[in-house]
Amino acid sequence: MTNIEEESHIKQCYLLAEEAVGNGDKPFGALPVIDGKVLLTAVNTVNSDNDKTRHAETNLVTEAWRRFSPHELAQCRLYTSTEPCAMCTGAIYVAGIPTIIFGCSAESLYELFGSDLSIPSREILALGQRETAVIGPILEDEGLKIHRAFWT
Amino acid sequence: MTNIEEESHIKQCYLLAEEAVGNGDKPFGALPVIDGKVLLTAVNTVNSDNDKTRHAETNLVTEAWRRFSPHELAQCRLYTSTEPCAMCTGAIYVAGIPTIIFGCSAESLYELFGSDLSIPSREILALGQRETAVIGPILEDEGLKIHRAFWT
Repeated sequence: MTNIEEESHIKQCYLLAEEAVGNGDKPFGALPVIDGKVLLTAVNTVNSDNDKTRHAETNLVTEAWRRFSPHELAQCRLYTSTEPCAMCTGAIYVAGIPTIIFGCSAESLYELFGSDLSIPSREILALGQRETAVIGPILEDEGLKIHRAFWT
Repeated sequence: MTNIEEESHIKQCYLLAEEAVGNGDKPFGALPVIDGKVLLTAVNTVNSDNDKTRHAETNLVTEAWRRFSPHELAQCRLYTSTEPCAMCTGAIYVAGIPTIIFGCSAESLYELFGSDLSIPSREILALGQRETAVIGPILEDEGLKIHRAFWT
Protein backbone atom coordinates (compact mmCIF):
# COMPACT_ATOMS: atom_id res chain seq x y z
CA MET A 1 0.00 0.00 0.00
CA THR A 2 1.69 3.17 -1.16
CA ASN A 3 0.68 6.76 -0.87
CA ILE A 4 1.13 9.86 -2.95
CA GLU A 5 4.15 11.06 -0.99
CA GLU A 6 5.94 7.74 -1.49
CA GLU A 7 5.14 7.72 -5.20
CA SER A 8 6.35 11.29 -5.57
CA HIS A 9 9.73 10.47 -3.97
CA ILE A 10 10.10 7.32 -6.07
CA LYS A 11 9.40 9.39 -9.20
CA GLN A 12 12.19 11.74 -8.12
CA CYS A 13 14.49 8.71 -7.70
CA TYR A 14 13.67 7.70 -11.28
CA LEU A 15 14.62 11.18 -12.48
CA LEU A 16 17.90 10.80 -10.57
CA ALA A 17 18.44 7.41 -12.23
CA GLU A 18 18.07 9.12 -15.61
CA GLU A 19 20.42 11.88 -14.47
CA ALA A 20 23.01 9.20 -13.63
CA VAL A 21 22.72 7.79 -17.16
CA GLY A 22 23.27 11.30 -18.49
CA ASN A 23 26.50 11.41 -16.46
CA GLY A 24 27.71 8.18 -18.08
CA ASP A 25 26.77 6.09 -15.06
CA LYS A 26 24.24 3.36 -14.39
CA PRO A 27 20.53 4.12 -13.83
CA PHE A 28 20.26 4.36 -10.07
CA GLY A 29 19.25 7.23 -7.81
CA ALA A 30 18.34 7.58 -4.14
CA LEU A 31 17.33 10.19 -1.58
CA PRO A 32 16.76 10.38 2.19
CA VAL A 33 13.61 11.95 3.60
CA ILE A 34 12.72 13.17 7.09
CA ASP A 35 9.18 14.43 7.77
CA GLY A 36 8.50 14.64 4.04
CA LYS A 37 11.58 16.78 3.36
CA VAL A 38 14.26 15.56 0.92
CA LEU A 39 17.62 16.01 2.66
CA LEU A 40 19.88 15.47 -0.34
CA THR A 41 20.02 13.47 -3.57
CA ALA A 42 22.48 10.80 -4.69
CA VAL A 43 23.21 8.97 -7.92
CA ASN A 44 25.37 6.05 -9.01
CA THR A 45 28.92 7.28 -9.80
CA VAL A 46 30.69 3.95 -10.44
CA ASN A 47 31.92 5.00 -13.88
CA SER A 48 32.47 8.69 -13.07
CA ASP A 49 34.55 7.84 -10.00
CA ASN A 50 35.95 4.57 -11.40
CA ASP A 51 34.91 3.08 -8.06
CA LYS A 52 32.86 -0.11 -7.86
CA THR A 53 31.61 0.89 -4.36
CA ARG A 54 29.96 4.16 -5.42
CA HIS A 55 26.35 3.10 -5.83
CA ALA A 56 23.59 5.67 -5.27
CA GLU A 57 22.90 4.42 -1.75
CA THR A 58 26.54 4.27 -0.61
CA ASN A 59 26.96 7.81 -1.94
CA LEU A 60 23.84 8.77 -0.01
CA VAL A 61 25.18 7.22 3.20
CA THR A 62 28.56 8.94 2.78
CA GLU A 63 26.96 12.36 2.35
CA ALA A 64 24.16 11.91 4.89
CA TRP A 65 26.65 10.70 7.54
CA ARG A 66 28.63 13.91 7.08
CA ARG A 67 25.65 16.24 7.16
CA PHE A 68 23.22 14.69 9.65
CA SER A 69 23.44 13.21 13.12
CA PRO A 70 22.91 9.51 13.91
CA HIS A 71 19.72 10.66 15.66
CA GLU A 72 18.49 12.26 12.42
CA LEU A 73 19.48 9.23 10.35
CA ALA A 74 17.47 7.08 12.74
CA GLN A 75 14.37 9.02 11.65
CA CYS A 76 15.16 8.81 7.97
CA ARG A 77 13.29 7.04 5.17
CA LEU A 78 15.64 6.14 2.33
CA TYR A 79 14.01 6.12 -1.10
CA THR A 80 15.80 4.42 -3.97
CA SER A 81 14.96 3.79 -7.62
CA THR A 82 15.83 0.08 -7.30
CA GLU A 83 15.97 -2.25 -4.31
CA PRO A 84 19.48 -1.93 -2.83
CA CYS A 85 22.14 -4.54 -3.60
CA ALA A 86 23.79 -6.44 -0.76
CA MET A 87 26.52 -3.81 -0.32
CA CYS A 88 24.06 -0.93 -0.18
CA THR A 89 21.65 -2.80 2.08
CA GLY A 90 24.58 -3.26 4.44
CA ALA A 91 25.60 0.41 4.17
CA ILE A 92 22.07 1.54 5.00
CA TYR A 93 22.01 -0.85 7.95
CA VAL A 94 25.43 0.33 9.16
CA ALA A 95 24.28 3.96 8.96
CA GLY A 96 21.28 3.16 11.16
CA ILE A 97 18.65 4.23 8.62
CA PRO A 98 15.55 2.24 9.61
CA THR A 99 13.37 2.37 6.48
CA ILE A 100 14.09 1.54 2.84
CA ILE A 101 11.49 2.32 0.15
CA PHE A 102 12.30 1.13 -3.35
CA GLY A 103 10.87 1.43 -6.87
CA CYS A 104 11.96 -1.65 -8.82
CA SER A 105 12.61 -4.93 -7.03
CA ALA A 106 15.95 -6.72 -7.24
CA GLU A 107 13.99 -9.79 -8.28
CA SER A 108 12.46 -8.08 -11.32
CA LEU A 109 15.86 -6.73 -12.32
CA TYR A 110 17.34 -10.21 -12.06
CA GLU A 111 14.54 -11.79 -14.06
CA LEU A 112 14.82 -9.21 -16.82
CA PHE A 113 18.55 -8.56 -17.02
CA GLY A 114 20.30 -11.31 -15.05
CA SER A 115 21.84 -8.81 -12.61
CA ASP A 116 24.04 -10.51 -10.03
CA LEU A 117 23.12 -7.93 -7.39
CA SER A 118 19.88 -9.68 -6.72
CA ILE A 119 20.17 -10.78 -3.10
CA PRO A 120 16.84 -9.48 -1.79
CA SER A 121 17.41 -6.77 0.82
CA ARG A 122 14.64 -8.11 3.05
CA GLU A 123 16.42 -11.44 3.38
CA ILE A 124 19.72 -9.77 4.33
CA LEU A 125 18.08 -7.48 6.86
CA ALA A 126 16.14 -10.35 8.39
CA LEU A 127 19.55 -11.62 9.56
CA GLY A 128 20.34 -8.38 11.41
CA GLN A 129 19.90 -7.46 15.06
CA ARG A 130 18.13 -4.18 14.40
CA GLU A 131 14.85 -4.01 12.52
CA THR A 132 14.88 -2.27 9.14
CA ALA A 133 11.61 -1.88 7.26
CA VAL A 134 11.59 -2.50 3.52
CA ILE A 135 8.74 -1.14 1.41
CA GLY A 136 8.29 -1.75 -2.31
CA PRO A 137 8.07 -2.19 -5.21
CA ILE A 138 6.44 1.16 -6.05
CA LEU A 139 5.67 2.32 -9.61
CA GLU A 140 7.83 -0.55 -10.80
CA ASP A 141 6.77 -0.47 -14.45
CA GLU A 142 7.90 3.14 -14.73
CA GLY A 143 11.30 2.26 -13.27
CA LEU A 144 11.75 -0.86 -15.35
CA LYS A 145 11.30 1.26 -18.50
CA ILE A 146 14.47 3.14 -17.53
CA HIS A 147 16.33 -0.12 -16.92
CA ARG A 148 15.06 -1.60 -20.18
CA ALA A 149 16.25 1.43 -22.14
CA PHE A 150 19.67 1.21 -20.48
CA TRP A 151 20.47 -2.50 -20.32
CA THR A 152 18.95 -3.80 -23.55
CA MET B 1 41.93 -26.19 8.47
CA THR B 2 44.38 -23.37 7.90
CA ASN B 3 47.88 -23.28 6.55
CA ILE B 4 50.97 -21.19 7.18
CA GLU B 5 50.32 -18.89 4.24
CA GLU B 6 46.81 -18.13 5.45
CA GLU B 7 48.03 -17.47 8.98
CA SER B 8 50.78 -15.20 7.71
CA HIS B 9 48.31 -13.06 5.74
CA ILE B 10 45.92 -12.89 8.68
CA LYS B 11 48.80 -11.75 10.90
CA GLN B 12 49.48 -8.98 8.37
CA CYS B 13 45.79 -8.02 8.53
CA TYR B 14 46.12 -7.73 12.33
CA LEU B 15 49.11 -5.41 11.88
CA LEU B 16 46.98 -3.34 9.49
CA ALA B 17 44.20 -3.25 12.09
CA GLU B 18 46.70 -1.83 14.60
CA GLU B 19 47.90 0.65 11.98
CA ALA B 20 44.30 1.82 11.56
CA VAL B 21 44.06 2.44 15.30
CA GLY B 22 47.27 4.45 15.07
CA ASN B 23 45.56 6.58 12.41
CA GLY B 24 42.64 7.28 14.74
CA ASP B 25 40.41 4.74 13.04
CA LYS B 26 38.84 1.45 14.06
CA PRO B 27 40.86 -1.79 14.20
CA PHE B 28 40.24 -3.35 10.82
CA GLY B 29 42.62 -4.22 7.99
CA ALA B 30 42.38 -6.26 4.80
CA LEU B 31 44.44 -7.30 1.80
CA PRO B 32 43.87 -9.14 -1.50
CA VAL B 33 46.18 -11.96 -2.57
CA ILE B 34 46.74 -13.68 -5.91
CA ASP B 35 49.09 -16.67 -6.09
CA GLY B 36 50.49 -15.85 -2.67
CA LYS B 37 51.31 -12.24 -3.62
CA VAL B 38 49.76 -9.36 -1.64
CA LEU B 39 48.41 -6.89 -4.22
CA LEU B 40 47.76 -3.96 -1.88
CA THR B 41 46.75 -3.24 1.71
CA ALA B 42 43.69 -1.45 3.08
CA VAL B 43 42.58 -0.15 6.47
CA ASN B 44 39.42 1.29 7.98
CA THR B 45 39.29 5.06 7.35
CA VAL B 46 35.80 5.87 8.70
CA ASN B 47 37.10 8.53 11.09
CA SER B 48 39.93 9.80 8.88
CA ASP B 49 37.58 10.27 5.92
CA ASN B 50 34.50 11.05 8.01
CA ASP B 51 32.76 8.48 5.84
CA LYS B 52 30.73 5.63 7.33
CA THR B 53 31.22 3.56 4.16
CA ARG B 54 35.04 3.45 4.30
CA HIS B 55 35.64 0.11 5.95
CA ALA B 56 38.87 -1.78 5.21
CA GLU B 57 37.17 -4.05 2.68
CA THR B 58 35.30 -1.30 0.80
CA ASN B 59 38.59 0.62 0.59
CA LEU B 60 40.19 -2.57 -0.71
CA VAL B 61 37.48 -3.01 -3.36
CA THR B 62 37.77 0.64 -4.45
CA GLU B 63 41.53 0.39 -4.92
CA ALA B 64 41.62 -3.14 -6.33
CA TRP B 65 38.91 -2.28 -8.87
CA ARG B 66 41.06 0.59 -10.15
CA ARG B 67 44.28 -1.39 -10.32
CA PHE B 68 43.26 -4.89 -11.37
CA SER B 69 40.99 -6.42 -14.01
CA PRO B 70 37.76 -8.26 -13.23
CA HIS B 71 39.61 -11.38 -14.42
CA GLU B 72 42.31 -10.81 -11.80
CA LEU B 73 39.75 -10.07 -9.09
CA ALA B 74 38.06 -13.36 -9.94
CA GLN B 75 41.28 -15.12 -8.89
CA CYS B 76 41.69 -13.14 -5.71
CA ARG B 77 41.58 -14.28 -2.10
CA LEU B 78 40.56 -11.43 0.20
CA TYR B 79 42.05 -11.61 3.69
CA THR B 80 40.55 -9.49 6.44
CA SER B 81 41.23 -9.09 10.14
CA THR B 82 37.53 -9.53 11.01
CA GLU B 83 34.67 -11.19 9.15
CA PRO B 84 33.19 -8.55 6.83
CA CYS B 85 30.03 -6.68 7.81
CA ALA B 86 26.98 -6.83 5.54
CA MET B 87 28.11 -3.80 3.50
CA CYS B 88 31.60 -5.18 2.95
CA THR B 89 30.34 -8.68 2.20
CA GLY B 90 28.17 -7.09 -0.49
CA ALA B 91 31.07 -5.00 -1.84
CA ILE B 92 33.28 -8.10 -2.11
CA TYR B 93 30.44 -9.94 -3.87
CA VAL B 94 29.82 -7.02 -6.25
CA ALA B 95 33.53 -6.89 -7.10
CA GLY B 96 33.48 -10.58 -8.04
CA ILE B 97 36.11 -11.65 -5.49
CA PRO B 98 35.35 -15.33 -4.89
CA THR B 99 37.11 -16.06 -1.59
CA ILE B 100 37.00 -14.35 1.81
CA ILE B 101 39.40 -15.43 4.57
CA PHE B 102 38.89 -13.79 7.96
CA GLY B 103 40.60 -13.69 11.36
CA CYS B 104 37.94 -12.91 13.97
CA SER B 105 34.35 -13.96 13.39
CA ALA B 106 31.48 -11.46 13.39
CA GLU B 107 29.81 -13.74 15.93
CA SER B 108 32.69 -13.45 18.43
CA LEU B 109 32.77 -9.69 17.99
CA TYR B 110 29.06 -9.51 18.64
CA GLU B 111 29.28 -11.71 21.72
CA LEU B 112 32.13 -9.69 23.18
CA PHE B 113 31.28 -6.14 22.19
CA GLY B 114 27.68 -6.14 20.98
CA SER B 115 28.63 -4.92 17.50
CA ASP B 116 25.59 -4.41 15.28
CA LEU B 117 27.54 -5.41 12.18
CA SER B 118 27.17 -9.03 13.00
CA ILE B 119 25.17 -10.46 10.13
CA PRO B 120 27.33 -13.48 9.30
CA SER B 121 28.85 -13.14 5.83
CA ARG B 122 28.23 -16.79 5.00
CA GLU B 123 24.49 -16.33 5.50
CA ILE B 124 24.40 -13.27 3.23
CA LEU B 125 26.45 -14.97 0.52
CA ALA B 126 24.30 -18.09 0.68
CA LEU B 127 21.53 -15.88 -0.73
CA GLY B 128 23.61 -14.90 -3.80
CA GLN B 129 23.66 -16.36 -7.29
CA ARG B 130 27.44 -16.71 -7.47
CA GLU B 131 29.37 -18.86 -4.99
CA THR B 132 31.74 -17.08 -2.64
CA ALA B 133 33.87 -19.17 -0.29
CA VAL B 134 34.25 -17.99 3.30
CA ILE B 135 37.12 -19.34 5.40
CA GLY B 136 37.68 -18.57 9.08
CA PRO B 137 38.11 -17.83 11.89
CA ILE B 138 41.94 -17.95 11.82
CA LEU B 139 44.15 -16.99 14.79
CA GLU B 140 41.04 -15.50 16.34
CA ASP B 141 42.46 -15.08 19.87
CA GLU B 142 45.25 -12.90 18.52
CA GLY B 143 42.76 -10.70 16.68
CA LEU B 144 40.35 -10.47 19.58
CA LYS B 145 43.18 -9.06 21.73
CA ILE B 146 43.33 -6.07 19.38
CA HIS B 147 39.56 -5.63 19.58
CA ARG B 148 39.57 -6.00 23.36
CA ALA B 149 42.26 -3.31 23.69
CA PHE B 150 40.27 -0.98 21.44
CA TRP B 151 36.65 -1.43 22.47
CA THR B 152 36.93 -1.97 26.22
